Amino acid sequence: MSELRKDPILGRWVIIAPDRAKRPSDFLKSSLPASPGGICPFCPGKEELTPPEILAVRRPGTSRDQPGWSVRVVPNKFPALRVEGELAREGEGMFDRMSGIGAHEVVIESSDHAKTLSDLAPAEVEEVLWTWGERIRDLSRDTRLRSVVLFKNHGEAAGATLEHAHSQLIALPVVPLLVAEEMKGAQAHHRTKERCIFCDVIRQERKDGVRLVLENEGCVVISPWAAASPFQLCLFPKNHLAHFEEEPRANIRWVAEALRTALRKLAVAFDRPAYNIILHSAPLRERGLTYYHWHLEIRPAVTRFAGFEWGSGFFINPVSPEDAAAFLRKTDDS
Amino acid sequence: MSELRKDPILGRWVIIAPDRAKRPSDFLKSSLPASPGGICPFCPGKEELTPPEILAVRRPGTSRDQPGWSVRVVPNKFPALRVEGELAREGEGMFDRMSGIGAHEVVIESSDHAKTLSDLAPAEVEEVLWTWGERIRDLSRDTRLRSVVLFKNHGEAAGATLEHAHSQLIALPVVPLLVAEEMKGAQAHHRTKERCIFCDVIRQERKDGVRLVLENEGCVVISPWAAASPFQLCLFPKNHLAHFEEEPRANIRWVAEALRTALRKLAVAFDRPAYNIILHSAPLRERGLTYYHWHLEIRPAVTRFAGFEWGSGFFINPVSPEDAAAFLRKTDDS
Repeated sequence: MSELRKDPILGRWVIIAPDRAKRPSDFLKSSLPASPGGICPFCPGKEELTPPEILAVRRPGTSRDQPGWSVRVVPNKFPALRVEGELAREGEGMFDRMSGIGAHEVVIESSDHAKTLSDLAPAEVEEVLWTWGERIRDLSRDTRLRSVVLFKNHGEAAGATLEHAHSQLIALPVVPLLVAEEMKGAQAHHRTKERCIFCDVIRQERKDGVRLVLENEGCVVISPWAAASPFQLCLFPKNHLAHFEEEPRANIRWVAEALRTALRKLAVAFDRPAYNIILHSAPLRERGLTYYHWHLEIRPAVTRFAGFEWGSGFFINPVSPEDAAAFLRKTDDS
Repeated sequence: MSELRKDPILGRWVIIAPDRAKRPSDFLKSSLPASPGGICPFCPGKEELTPPEILAVRRPGTSRDQPGWSVRVVPNKFPALRVEGELAREGEGMFDRMSGIGAHEVVIESSDHAKTLSDLAPAEVEEVLWTWGERIRDLSRDTRLRSVVLFKNHGEAAGATLEHAHSQLIALPVVPLLVAEEMKGAQAHHRTKERCIFCDVIRQERKDGVRLVLENEGCVVISPWAAASPFQLCLFPKNHLAHFEEEPRANIRWVAEALRTALRKLAVAFDRPAYNIILHSAPLRERGLTYYHWHLEIRPAVTRFAGFEWGSGFFINPVSPEDAAAFLRKTDDS
């Protein structure tokens, strides 16, 4: 059974999710199920290899856990957290722990094993993003849950262990450190300026233009001023909204189009690199925030981070965001 | 010329150090010099391949930049920051930048190309650690510098690009985010309890014993309560001291012995894994701190971190610290 433990100095919660591994070599195993005998558990016709589906976008007339879906959400087979049980908190001397209550789900993004997210049609990417929102809306009804970490690992270098396009979400009874830090930074700005700092960034980036990668009616994609890694991108909706899951469908269309174009540009520039996408959205229990603004972060896995970055929180980026943006602006996405 | 840029939301500074790379494939280049034609620039007899040495532990009668040394410190050939120039600060709209003033040095840990840090004799490891302190003491005289990030990348999976045993230090005109967070957490504890939180942790870990890996007269090595990655270890000096570079030589001997034993245990357990070492020491300009306590972090690179951890600051560790400590206690280090 997994548990959450609080780092006594940083105040950061960590999931300790021991599997039954016994020897150090076993600890290298991933948390995602490996394809048994080359059979992909995310392909249509193999629905029995995953736990029963939570949600699916299906052709009319097809049944649950059967083919006919285009997007399918299932619980992670080896979840880091589970919904069942009580949210027990206890101390152990000076240390704090909490039971591993939460959810860990997989969003299978296409029924086609060979297609990546950026290979999908714009309307299909929109379905994937809308499904993310559906799951967050559903999970937010559980008042024990405080935040959702939604992410996509694409490619082995980005931590993916299954090829078939998928994203994951982990719903937590705590707020992760960087989300809390972002909230704090944004709130401090709002306190002095009475403006959203993200809206300010969008305004300046649209005016300066040098770090702008693309723009459509609903969003901008920029290479941020203090990008921590080469070709890191941020997608901001122009409309001010703290929670991704409150975004209306009409705007999700623009987000899907911009995300797809950005990923296609990276695919051309780096010959289909591994990458991560991370959703930054306000904690579930804090509604009507004026100071936070949801966004997506895209990180191509083009450099290997060294452990010192983990230990210091300090980054050296060998590519200026202006160079990265200029390069991607010129890159054809077709 | 590199510069420091402040993330407007997180308040975190990042080094933007563009090299002359022009195409995306070039961006994968490392910041360390690759061995030209298989010749190791860190080997004795090849001293002309590095910039002139800053410091060396030498046999009497040998000369600068010639063989005869056992530990040698040189500037990084492709430094992320330079000592020369003025510490200029300026804004660009809402954004902040600072010139890339600082230092980036390499500590070559042995004249023997084939030896890793843990292969060295205890007295040799002590020389390496003492040299770290010597460099920090020297750099701290430059009042523009606020902190030193000292780290070691061992093995390719941990980010090393040269095999020959070495560590690096980067002296900065800012304090990295995680260092600032640690200071804040430790200060909050001290404010309510009037005790050092690290001393409290050491006391509890020695009493509980379950996360203790080893102990000698001067230090303890533990697998911390909320370890963010498998087999992550922390080495704490028992003696309360905020700054590593103020540690007397007699204690550095105990630190070297404990670090060497911990690394040898990992080498046996994981068949010589890649790993990182990160020094956590108080910022240079804050002296006589009662609430901070320097320590070393050791992270074997046994799992690949996914980008979502970078984006959220949230970690899932599949190995409990108690299991890791029990395993390493039993592991023979000889």
